[in-house]
Amino acid sequence: MRRIYLITYDVCDPKRLRHTFRCLRNWGDHLQYSVFECQLTETDLLRCKAELAEIIHHKEDQVLVIDLGPAASRRDDLVEAIGQPYSAMAAPCLVI
Amino acid sequence: MRRIYLITYDVCDPKRLRHTFRCLRNWGDHLQYSVFECQLTETDLLRCKAELAEIIHHKEDQVLVIDLGPAASRRDDLVEAIGQPYSAMAAPCLVI
Repeated sequence: MRRIYLITYDVCDPKRLRHTFRCLRNWGDHLQYSVFECQLTETDLLRCKAELAEIIHHKEDQVLVIDLGPAASRRDDLVEAIGQPYSAMAAPCLVI
Repeated sequence: MRRIYLITYDVCDPKRLRHTFRCLRNWGDHLQYSVFECQLTETDLLRCKAELAEIIHHKEDQVLVIDLGPAASRRDDLVEAIGQPYSAMAAPCLVI
């Protein structure tokens, strides 16, 4: 069963930032500069977290993984957007 | 009754970015470069959203407001941190 996760990150080093971005691009949709939405199985989540744990510096960087619940019973009222709508970015970012 | 909200933002203009940061600093704790955690009543939330709606450019910027549920029954497993712990930033950021 897939669950929806918002994953946000603060990564201090440009190289690690690029690697974090590239890692998450494989797992989900890019919503904001440092925010992805990922629909992951339990195994996916473990793999994704393991990859991120390899990339980041554990004393300088931070990744937050926010569980928004089962993908199958997605609650549309959990995330509200002000300004641009809540959807994957059309032009995926400067950090490549 | 207060609820916990994660508020993330992508704001393209430096002046609006500063204003967004200053606005959210009044409402909650700064977690990451563009992520705040706010514990808000329904009225607080409306006021906070109204302030943000005044600040941002609605076609260029985006604020996401993510409802993490009641503050009184906070679920610690909803947000997981990799790297630095999940807490307010000790040194609140470059954007002042």
